[in-house]
Amino acid sequence: MAREAVVPDSCYFYYPHLVCVVGVRDDAKGTTNFAPVAWTTPLSSAPPLFGVCLSPTTYTHHLALKTGEFTANFLGSEHMALAHELGRLSGRTTDKVKRLGLVLGRPEALATPYMATAYVAAECSLLERHHVGDQTLFVGEVQRIHTADDAFDADGVLRIARVNPLLYLGGNRYVTTDRTSEVEPGDTTTER
Amino acid sequence: MAREAVVPDSCYFYYPHLVCVVGVRDDAKGTTNFAPVAWTTPLSSAPPLFGVCLSPTTYTHHLALKTGEFTANFLGSEHMALAHELGRLSGRTTDKVKRLGLVLGRPEALATPYMATAYVAAECSLLERHHVGDQTLFVGEVQRIHTADDAFDADGVLRIARVNPLLYLGGNRYVTTDRTSEVEPGDTTTER
Repeated sequence: MAREAVVPDSCYFYYPHLVCVVGVRDDAKGTTNFAPVAWTTPLSSAPPLFGVCLSPTTYTHHLALKTGEFTANFLGSEHMALAHELGRLSGRTTDKVKRLGLVLGRPEALATPYMATAYVAAECSLLERHHVGDQTLFVGEVQRIHTADDAFDADGVLRIARVNPLLYLGGNRYVTTDRTSEVEPGDTTTER
Repeated sequence: MAREAVVPDSCYFYYPHLVCVVGVRDDAKGTTNFAPVAWTTPLSSAPPLFGVCLSPTTYTHHLALKTGEFTANFLGSEHMALAHELGRLSGRTTDKVKRLGLVLGRPEALATPYMATAYVAAECSLLERHHVGDQTLFVGEVQRIHTADDAFDADGVLRIARVNPLLYLGGNRYVTTDRTSEVEPGDTTTER
């Protein structure tokens, strides 16, 4: 395979990546804001920690710090345009929930709503944060997880035959998983 | 949609996630070890930082600390069984490169080889690390990126018509992207 070596100038090399819509409360306005974030990852299983990278310039960064909470919401690919719109609009000037007619899920452990259309949403309390380059990594301790019925199997693995998770590919482009491609290494269809 | 609220006990809720095979040098043995890691994310664009979560008990953790470097390698789904085997074998007792016949790519900026079969591989120097729960987050500064020809378009976006990226779904299960599903929000196929 012919190859090329380049100096890094794009982050898209590490995509596709699940779109995580981060929800934060604005108590002054009495609203909840939602914004899509691509740079997220689980960080620990015990305690269950989930990390979200936010630019210090964003409204979401400001509010997550202020309230010490956020929700992490994952959408099916049928909500691609919604996710993109949530990224395009500014929460500082627009009540996205009102504008886009979002239905809020009522939190159980904390006080920040989640997206009712998410196939899974996690309530996170802010445990700590780290400055990394031009971003801040918010380390959330997962307090509660809300799942759509039958989205996951008994082991907590996503049923891709039922849910098409929304993945961000880069630029303005999104993709989902190939539901026919799910394999285990023991399958005879496997190549080495 | 009927919903269920659960206390977190699985990390699979946040999958699928690109499989990142982390390469580290063992200078005492004169070998390179590769191990798949699911908890990774870009962290910053300027400087370009890439984060990898490793358990302190692992050989990879030990060697990344020792050398201050690692490579991040991303594989096509045709290498699923290889990735799984790299996770099953222990690098402490097995020279995986020899055992699995891996071809090494020669680094340009640093001294840790990458996987020649990866469609993209990044050479990272260890900038800092953070203890997060039961893991350590290694923050790597990306020094060079090696890409297979034509894997990415001019904007650095993966060409999923040519590359089927390997995603980990949870348990022993893997999946790839649906190459027919790539859409932009402006497409008329989009639902809101």
